[in-house]
Amino acid sequence: MAPVKEMESKQPKSMEKRTLQVSNPHLEQMKDDILYHFDLGTNTHDFQDLFGDVKFVCVGGSPSRMKAFAQYITGELNMGDPTADIPNICAGTDRYAMYKVGPVLSISHGMGIPSISIMLHELIKLLYHSKCCDVTIIRIGTSGGIGIEPGSVVITSQSVNPCFEPQFEQIVLGKTVIRSTKLDAELAQELVQCSQEINEFNTVIGNTMCTLDFYEGQARLDGAICSYTEEEKMQYLRAAYEAGIRNIEMESSVFAAMCNISGLRAAVVCVTLLNRLEGDQISSSHDVLVEYQQRPQKLVGYFIKKHLTKV
Amino acid sequence: MAPVKEMESKQPKSMEKRTLQVSNPHLEQMKDDILYHFDLGTNTHDFQDLFGDVKFVCVGGSPSRMKAFAQYITGELNMGDPTADIPNICAGTDRYAMYKVGPVLSISHGMGIPSISIMLHELIKLLYHSKCCDVTIIRIGTSGGIGIEPGSVVITSQSVNPCFEPQFEQIVLGKTVIRSTKLDAELAQELVQCSQEINEFNTVIGNTMCTLDFYEGQARLDGAICSYTEEEKMQYLRAAYEAGIRNIEMESSVFAAMCNISGLRAAVVCVTLLNRLEGDQISSSHDVLVEYQQRPQKLVGYFIKKHLTKV
Repeated sequence: MAPVKEMESKQPKSMEKRTLQVSNPHLEQMKDDILYHFDLGTNTHDFQDLFGDVKFVCVGGSPSRMKAFAQYITGELNMGDPTADIPNICAGTDRYAMYKVGPVLSISHGMGIPSISIMLHELIKLLYHSKCCDVTIIRIGTSGGIGIEPGSVVITSQSVNPCFEPQFEQIVLGKTVIRSTKLDAELAQELVQCSQEINEFNTVIGNTMCTLDFYEGQARLDGAICSYTEEEKMQYLRAAYEAGIRNIEMESSVFAAMCNISGLRAAVVCVTLLNRLEGDQISSSHDVLVEYQQRPQKLVGYFIKKHLTKV
Repeated sequence: MAPVKEMESKQPKSMEKRTLQVSNPHLEQMKDDILYHFDLGTNTHDFQDLFGDVKFVCVGGSPSRMKAFAQYITGELNMGDPTADIPNICAGTDRYAMYKVGPVLSISHGMGIPSISIMLHELIKLLYHSKCCDVTIIRIGTSGGIGIEPGSVVITSQSVNPCFEPQFEQIVLGKTVIRSTKLDAELAQELVQCSQEINEFNTVIGNTMCTLDFYEGQARLDGAICSYTEEEKMQYLRAAYEAGIRNIEMESSVFAAMCNISGLRAAVVCVTLLNRLEGDQISSSHDVLVEYQQRPQKLVGYFIKKHLTKV
């Protein structure tokens, strides 16, 4: 059966108020909504009171990194002691971790499309139940770079699949639905501007390839299974570079698709831990990797601070 | 391009010694192998010394559940105080958690195909570097049931995709490769026998549908996005039941495919938290859900104890 192509939701112009869209008529009829993987529910928690003021949501794979980001933001926004412990709103489960610092929510999403997609379904419902508006969501993550210096930060213009197409294929009731994976161009430019102001590391705008697998899916030679030669690998990665791809990660496609449908202003900001044209193993020292991982946090922290100060 | 169909590795008869197969000729040439997401490496850790005696690997989504399983096994095998703390071998990262109790390894894999696939690549290499043989691997997890009482345990005969086909599609260098998702029939029978001996909960053998998404991918009406009616949902789930599917989860397909290729004896044992023909939300009380989640642990614990006592 031919896949169905869906249109993204119509984005308002940047000055209009963006209300969140929940593209599900069934939700209106639910008396209670249990967000199972957050261990939160509309009957047990006052969402509007807890989350009504949220304007920025930052998401990343690792729970400890998202806690560190919440602490960093606490310091940047002068909202308390950045070294103090901060409570995990999802303490009742170990699927995801969530921290809130004023208007900023910091949430972990685990690794891969399915894991971030569960989180996004529940997050979008959380923002909807909380009656949030004008929310900007940014994924801050790690990735493998292609043809750029390790430690460079890539801001995604569009997420592409392993065939280099800017689309996400979602299977619904056994049928394939195709969704757009473009991201907000204005927001990407704003973030590049912030990086220039910080002036501490290289930042580029480029396409990001999103894969379902870290090893074979990303043409690595060092997994438990590998059926191709080094030459075939290099040919594939060079073709990716030619297609404008500057990094590879595992969440951006469904993130872009779901944010498009829900009318969320969204960006993907990932640091590259290595240059895949040079190798497969992530072998930089622990300290170097820790410093790299702080770059997207620093960039997005600066962006949020700038916005909140302007207001 | 037409997808390439791969054959699974030839399984030895049950009495032969099963050596682990790493289907990657490039590994031989690597001086050091960093298992990045475990924070372990062949140059920094003596794998044979640490893991050479492993015979059973149990994997599940949640880190805390896999720690609880390791503690439970400690008690079952009389290897110490089951309430005592147990060190996380992967303490240097928060991607996965790993615990070892004698010949039993207990590892978390997060949610979804990509997350478990990264873990399996690194686990298979770990077992290979450790020169392990005769290893049995069992996924103990949670799932949504179809047409069976909540709390029932399903042992997977084969994992099927959302079109009900017993295959896993892996994209390698942009091309689709199809892999078999059958699981060890003899091991499944052995596990059913164990459940009959325990005689505490309903256990069935059935097909398991593996999806990339918890909401739309599993025909739920309660996600942030839903474009189908309740009738269309029910039609899809009833067709799944007709195709022999008894539960839905998010990891079994790549688990079966990778274990097949690597010659690992494998089973998937999942409890069902609800009957999807009755609803979508997981609304049972915390205590009931905790008891349900202990059932696969109890079953697999009994199986391991029986095997080790026999030897």
